[in-house]
Amino acid sequence: MAFSPLLQNLISALRCLPGVGPKSAQRMALHLLERERDAALTLSQALVEAVENIGECSECRTLSEDPVCEICASASRDRSLLCVLESPVDMLAVEQTGGYNGTYFVLKGHLSPIDGIGPDALGIDQLVERVSQGEVKELILATNPTVEGEATSHYIVEQLKDDPVRITRIAHGVPVGGELEYVDGGTLAHALAGRRSLR
Amino acid sequence: MAFSPLLQNLISALRCLPGVGPKSAQRMALHLLERERDAALTLSQALVEAVENIGECSECRTLSEDPVCEICASASRDRSLLCVLESPVDMLAVEQTGGYNGTYFVLKGHLSPIDGIGPDALGIDQLVERVSQGEVKELILATNPTVEGEATSHYIVEQLKDDPVRITRIAHGVPVGGELEYVDGGTLAHALAGRRSLR
Repeated sequence: MAFSPLLQNLISALRCLPGVGPKSAQRMALHLLERERDAALTLSQALVEAVENIGECSECRTLSEDPVCEICASASRDRSLLCVLESPVDMLAVEQTGGYNGTYFVLKGHLSPIDGIGPDALGIDQLVERVSQGEVKELILATNPTVEGEATSHYIVEQLKDDPVRITRIAHGVPVGGELEYVDGGTLAHALAGRRSLR
Repeated sequence: MAFSPLLQNLISALRCLPGVGPKSAQRMALHLLERERDAALTLSQALVEAVENIGECSECRTLSEDPVCEICASASRDRSLLCVLESPVDMLAVEQTGGYNGTYFVLKGHLSPIDGIGPDALGIDQLVERVSQGEVKELILATNPTVEGEATSHYIVEQLKDDPVRITRIAHGVPVGGELEYVDGGTLAHALAGRRSLR
């Protein structure tokens, strides 16, 4: 005896969620059916509505219900600053610092030839095109501090080598609140090389 | 700036899944929207179909698409044996041992007065009624070896004190393949008390 077909179906469908293996999917399916039937229907509805109505902002490529997202449409943002990020979550993280009032460009990933993700998939042409219009005075590369993120930043710099725009990279260094003892060598080397004068 | 309303909606809806906190829900929502839109629609469909069509077996209370589940409907199962379990997953686990050919009764939980789960919610009346019909010769209590599971078993025994049915409890002891060194004291005490003669 296995589970009934519809239950088996639900268990397989739950596997599309990141980090959900066969055991968790089974636990989730049974939990929903035994205790949370209303919530399951709400979730079903939310999934359809999100998939059908959330597209991407035509300017910054973040997830958005409107053709142009709230930030790109806002008159109070400084359009001379453009921050390049790997994902909409990173955008939220930067917004939550409260210290940035420029605009964004979301790559939705990083260069990864092995997975077939090239410059096209990341909209790098669109980014270069936007910079070439001249409104952007500084391009802040805030891709992840990983090998792929660095490679992606490097590629963008290459593509813009003939453009006079100022290009910066977010600082690497020791995290605030961390202890030097536990910081890896690469980070510490960056922190020393990027030292700033206090007086 | 927060996420757009529909995205926020999806993130909240995902929180109904067990073990999914705010961060995982956010990661799941973005993953689905960025990479798995088809899978999200499939999941939505699977949720509705499961909730609408999966009810419970009128005999054993397990999750079933039919009024009576496959096992209860089968002519080849020994109806004189009735195994009482806390959940449909436990039923699957017992089935997978391949060593049991009796029938089941699923409580869907354990007694937990603090959560308002009493004998009614567990269908204990229905269980007592079924046993009193006389077809069941042995009632095997296979609730979890936890305080709540033991209390639930104890309660069932109390309810059947005037019935001549044979009542057994699954054995507590050292798990197969485990090492004595790592077995907790309570389990070891049970294993010693429940020792069996080899010759």
